[in-house]
Amino acid sequence: MSNRQNCDSGSLSPLELYERVTTQGDKVRSLKAAEAPKDEIDTAVKLLLSLKLMYKATTGEGYKAGSPPTDFTPINNAPTLAEDDDFVDPWTVQTSSAKGVDYDKLIVRFGSSKIDKELINRLERVTGQKPHHFLRRGIFFSHRDMNQILDAYENKKPFYLYTGRGPSSEAMHVGHLIPLIFTKWLQEVFDIPLVIQLTDDEKYLWKDLTVERAYEYAVENVKDIIACGFDINKTFIFSDLDYLGMSPGFYKNIVKIQKHVTFNQVKGIFGFTDSDCIGKISFPAIQAAPSFSSTFPQIFKGKEDIQCLIPCAIDQDPYFRMTRDVAPRLGYPKPALLHSIFFPALQGAQTKMSASDPNSSIFLTDTPKQIKTKINKHAFSGGKDTIEEHRKYGGNCDVDVSYMYLTFFLEDDDKLEQLKQAYTSGALLTGELKKVLIETLQPLIAAHQERRKQVTNEMVKQFMTPRKLAFEF
Amino acid sequence: MSNRQNCDSGSLSPLELYERVTTQGDKVRSLKAAEAPKDEIDTAVKLLLSLKLMYKATTGEGYKAGSPPTDFTPINNAPTLAEDDDFVDPWTVQTSSAKGVDYDKLIVRFGSSKIDKELINRLERVTGQKPHHFLRRGIFFSHRDMNQILDAYENKKPFYLYTGRGPSSEAMHVGHLIPLIFTKWLQEVFDIPLVIQLTDDEKYLWKDLTVERAYEYAVENVKDIIACGFDINKTFIFSDLDYLGMSPGFYKNIVKIQKHVTFNQVKGIFGFTDSDCIGKISFPAIQAAPSFSSTFPQIFKGKEDIQCLIPCAIDQDPYFRMTRDVAPRLGYPKPALLHSIFFPALQGAQTKMSASDPNSSIFLTDTPKQIKTKINKHAFSGGKDTIEEHRKYGGNCDVDVSYMYLTFFLEDDDKLEQLKQAYTSGALLTGELKKVLIETLQPLIAAHQERRKQVTNEMVKQFMTPRKLAFEF
Repeated sequence: MSNRQNCDSGSLSPLELYERVTTQGDKVRSLKAAEAPKDEIDTAVKLLLSLKLMYKATTGEGYKAGSPPTDFTPINNAPTLAEDDDFVDPWTVQTSSAKGVDYDKLIVRFGSSKIDKELINRLERVTGQKPHHFLRRGIFFSHRDMNQILDAYENKKPFYLYTGRGPSSEAMHVGHLIPLIFTKWLQEVFDIPLVIQLTDDEKYLWKDLTVERAYEYAVENVKDIIACGFDINKTFIFSDLDYLGMSPGFYKNIVKIQKHVTFNQVKGIFGFTDSDCIGKISFPAIQAAPSFSSTFPQIFKGKEDIQCLIPCAIDQDPYFRMTRDVAPRLGYPKPALLHSIFFPALQGAQTKMSASDPNSSIFLTDTPKQIKTKINKHAFSGGKDTIEEHRKYGGNCDVDVSYMYLTFFLEDDDKLEQLKQAYTSGALLTGELKKVLIETLQPLIAAHQERRKQVTNEMVKQFMTPRKLAFEF
Repeated sequence: MSNRQNCDSGSLSPLELYERVTTQGDKVRSLKAAEAPKDEIDTAVKLLLSLKLMYKATTGEGYKAGSPPTDFTPINNAPTLAEDDDFVDPWTVQTSSAKGVDYDKLIVRFGSSKIDKELINRLERVTGQKPHHFLRRGIFFSHRDMNQILDAYENKKPFYLYTGRGPSSEAMHVGHLIPLIFTKWLQEVFDIPLVIQLTDDEKYLWKDLTVERAYEYAVENVKDIIACGFDINKTFIFSDLDYLGMSPGFYKNIVKIQKHVTFNQVKGIFGFTDSDCIGKISFPAIQAAPSFSSTFPQIFKGKEDIQCLIPCAIDQDPYFRMTRDVAPRLGYPKPALLHSIFFPALQGAQTKMSASDPNSSIFLTDTPKQIKTKINKHAFSGGKDTIEEHRKYGGNCDVDVSYMYLTFFLEDDDKLEQLKQAYTSGALLTGELKKVLIETLQPLIAAHQERRKQVTNEMVKQFMTPRKLAFEF
C-alpha cells in the first residue's frame, strides 16, 4: 500500500480518485498540446498511471472515462497492472508493465487483426521464403488486409511498400532500424517499389526547430536509411519539405484527403485541441497521402489503383485508420498494414526507445565502448538481486531488456532459445546475457557505420530525386 | 411597420427579439459551415438583417452579441438601416442598405486606414502619375502601410504586387476586373513584379468540384486575366494545385505560417467550426504565403525581405490581417494592402456581384444583346416610379446600380458628373442612364473578348511557368 502514500491519495474515496484520474488525464493531454518538455510529460503520465493503479486497487475495476464509480467492493490486493493502463498514440507510448504494452489488447482496441500462424504459413507458401524472424517472434504482430496483399501477389497484381520516419535528431537509434530491416526484407521477397517518407515538416511543427534544421536532420537520416542496403533502382526516399515542391501528385492528394477529414475527426483520433496550430491539425493528411499511388506519378505513371502495404510501429496506426476511412471516398484502395511492437527503452519496456533521451537509446553512431557501457549500466535486468538467488530462482526474460533486444537482433532461433532456457533456469547470469547482446550489437552497428561511410552525397541526391523506378506500370 | 408582421416578430419583447437575432446568427453560421446552397444562406442572412432591424426599431439600439437588452425606450421610427447590419467575410457580403456597405464603419471595424486626399496627393507627387479614377472616386478606399510602399518607391527599394482570384466557374464577371485593372495600373506606375494566385484548391475545398475541374476553371480564368493586358515579362500567374508541386519555396512558407496560427485564431477570424474539414482550416496559410517573397525563389533569388503590396476587395482583408500578424514572427516584412469596395450585384448594392448567380452578373462572355437585356431588366434603379415624378423629384444616384457601375467604368470625370447632375435633377431618365452604361460596357467587354481570343495555350503556359522575371534581385 506504500503506493497510496506515494501518490498522496491514500485517503481518497473512489469518486475522488476517479476525479483525480480524470483531471490528471486532462493535464497529460494539455501538456502534450502545449508541447511541454518530455520530462514533464513523462512525469505527468507516470502520475496518471499510478492514479489509475490506485483507482483499480481501491475499486477492483479499471478506470473508464465517463463512467464514475457507483458500486464497488474495496479490495486489498497489491496493485496489479491493468492492460488499460497502456497509453499509445503517435507521440507517446507508456505502460506501467515491465513486460511492455499488452499488444493483444491493443489489437482489440485498434480493430486490427493478429498475425497468426495461418497468415505466416500462407506468406511462406505464397512467397517460398522462410518468414522473417520478426514475424516468427511476433515482433510484427498485427495487420490490416495482409491477405489482400498475398492475393495480389498470387495474382501478379502490382502493389508497393511505404514506410517512414520522423527525423527528430541527427542520430538514429537501433529501434529505428526495425521497420527498415523488415521493409527491406519485404521488398526483397515481393520485389516491388518502396517509398520512404521523412516527415521533416512534422518535426518542424512539433519541435523547437527551424525548417532548415528539420530538413538537415532528414538528409542525415536518409544516409542511415541508405546504409540499410536499399536498392537504389527500386526505392524512392523523400523529405516532405522537399518533395511537396517537386511533385505534381502529392499536394493534390493532400488537399483531397483534407477535404474529407473534419477537425472533429482529427480531434477524436489524435487528441488535437483548439490551441493546436493549424499545421498540426492538417498534418495527418501529409502522412496519409503516400498511401495512394497517384502521389508518385513518376513511379506509377499516374495510376491511382496500385495498393500500398505499410510496415510501421503500431503507434502510427491512427494515421492509417484515418487514411483507410478516407480512401474509398476518393476512389482509392485502402492501404494494408503490418504493425510492429515498440522497441523498448534500455530502462525497460514501459516506454519505447527515444532519440530525445540519450540514456534510453543505443545510437547507430555509438562506439563499441559506448554500446558496452550503456548496456551494462542501463539495460533493465530480469535477473535476481544476488548471484545466489539468480542461480536458485532464475531470471525473467519477460522483463529483461537485453533478452528482448536479442529477440530483435539475434537471428539464430536455436541460440536464442538456449539463452532463454539458461537465463530462466539461472544457469546464465545477467552479465553473461548482456555480454551476448553486446557482442551481437557491436558488429551489427560497426557494419552499419561502415556502410554509412560509403554513402555519398551523390547517392543521397539520387535516392531523393523523383524518378521512374525499375518497374513498369 | 409592415416589416414587423413580415418577419413574424411584431409582438416580441426586446429580449425575445434579442434571442431571435442570436439564434438566427447561429443558424447563418452553421449553414455556411455546412456549405448549404447559396439561396438558403441568402434567405437566412436576409432574415437575420430583418431581425436586427426590428431589434433596433424596438429598442433604439443596435444589436450587440453578448449584450442582451436591459434598459430601452421603445421608439416608433420607421426602421432605418444600421451600419452594423453589414455582414462581410471572405464568402459573404450582405447589407440591408441599398447604398451598400458602410465602408467608413468597415475601416474602423477592420482597423485599416482611409485612403485620404493626402495619400492620393502623395502618390501623385511621388510617381508623377495622375491617380487612377478608382482612387479618385473612392473605389479603392482603404489601405494598410501604403505610405511605407511610397517610402520604398522614393528610396528605390524593391517591392512587388500580389493579387488573386478564386476560380469558381469558367466565366468571370465584370466585377472581377476591378482588382485586375487596378493592379495593372499599379504595375505600370511602379514597374515592379506581379504575382497572381488562383486559389483552385480553395474552390475545391469549398465547392462541390473535383480537383481537375477546379484546375480547369483556373486555367480558363488565367486566359481572362492575360486578356487584361499584363506584361508577360513582369507577371507570374499560378494555380495553387499546380505551383505548390513546382516550387521549392511555397510549401516551406505555408508550413511556417501554419505553425504560427492556431485553430482558435482561424475560428475567430474566419468563423470555422469543429465540423469544418481540415483543408478549410489550414487554407488561410495558402492565401497568406504569396505575401512573402521567398515563396517565389525563381523571381526574388530566395530573398526574404522584399515587401509585398496587395490590391484586393476588402472582404479578403481577414486573410491578410492574419498574415500581418504572423509576418514578424517569421522575420518577414508585413504586406501592405489597398482595399476596394465591392462591385454591386445588378439587383442592388445589398450584395456583391456573384458568378454563381447569373442574374446578378454581367459576364465577360456576355454578348452585346445579353448585356443590354440584363441591364435593362435587372439593374436596380434609383429613379422614380413614373416619368412625371422622376422629372419632378429626380433620381437617386446613391442607390442606382447603373450609376454605380459607371463610376467603375466611365473614366471621364466630367461626363460622369454631368450624368449625376442630370439624373439627380430629373433631366435624365433611368432608361437613358442605362443606355449610357450599356454603351460603355458593350465595347469594353467586346474588346476584352477580342483580346481573350488572342490568348494562346502557349501564352497561358508561359505565364504559369515559374521563371525569372524582367527584374534583378
